Amino acid sequence: MIRRTAQRKPGGGSAEPVELGPLENWLGFNLRVAQTASFAAFARISRNVGVQPGRFAMLTLIGRNPGISQTALSRANGRDKSTLTPLLNDLSRRGLVRRTRTRQDRRAYRLTLTPAGERLLLQLTACAEEHERILDRVVGARDRARFLETLKRIGSDLV
Amino acid sequence: MIRRTAQRKPGGGSAEPVELGPLENWLGFNLRVAQTASFAAFARISRNVGVQPGRFAMLTLIGRNPGISQTALSRANGRDKSTLTPLLNDLSRRGLVRRTRTRQDRRAYRLTLTPAGERLLLQLTACAEEHERILDRVVGARDRARFLETLKRIGSDLV
Repeated sequence: MIRRTAQRKPGGGSAEPVELGPLENWLGFNLRVAQTASFAAFARISRNVGVQPGRFAMLTLIGRNPGISQTALSRANGRDKSTLTPLLNDLSRRGLVRRTRTRQDRRAYRLTLTPAGERLLLQLTACAEEHERILDRVVGARDRARFLETLKRIGSDLV
Repeated sequence: MIRRTAQRKPGGGSAEPVELGPLENWLGFNLRVAQTASFAAFARISRNVGVQPGRFAMLTLIGRNPGISQTALSRANGRDKSTLTPLLNDLSRRGLVRRTRTRQDRRAYRLTLTPAGERLLLQLTACAEEHERILDRVVGARDRARFLETLKRIGSDLV
């Protein structure tokens, strides 16, 4: 244990040591910390684009799959529908996504991008490409394929 | 309701194919999907404990480091202080965390667990251990060490 309790200063600077306990080597905690860091890095890169980075994947999926349903979108995006709905409301209010009710099923929506949504997607894709280059550098060419494969396994097997 | 893929139907079931485009092999997207799946699995395991799973790491860090400052907590936890404050308000309101102002710096808090916080932490730790066993199984013994090391690198190098 490397705690120096005696000199600890509340509100302290970068020198204050923190004992992580079991979190140190737990996958769940380190996955969350990595994701938070990745999200923050993307937010920094895309901060001038004027839409939160969490929207990027949704815009991409709608752009690639015009007419996609909310169910398919939430599955592909790894979010449940209740999380998705407020995000879609926001994108719709901003005029980026269009929701059309279908004749076959009045409760279901088809989702498409508006021209403004298409333009925003292009900007965000450039940001995401820059973000990926940074992630690639941190992960390293040697580890990338297996790391990606493990992430995919967690995303599909745990749900 | 069974949906077929030839002509895609909105509100579609599990068979609706979705094109992921560049997301398919991007680390950022797959990291987020893995983290969402991991979080949802932990939420399922801990749903009877009565506190959201995002609080677990905070309780652990406060329990292991009694008197920790908000600054040190936010750094160890990989969250910025503005995200942390509402979570701490919630934990304090529920009587799980005690905040004490320090004499040296009236703006700074020391954080400690209350006895109720300690008890809740024990329950959540048992849930986290179960969650880790599941993650370990999905990741596999062969990949675990390098996967963890890569996650840590993203968490530290990207911030």
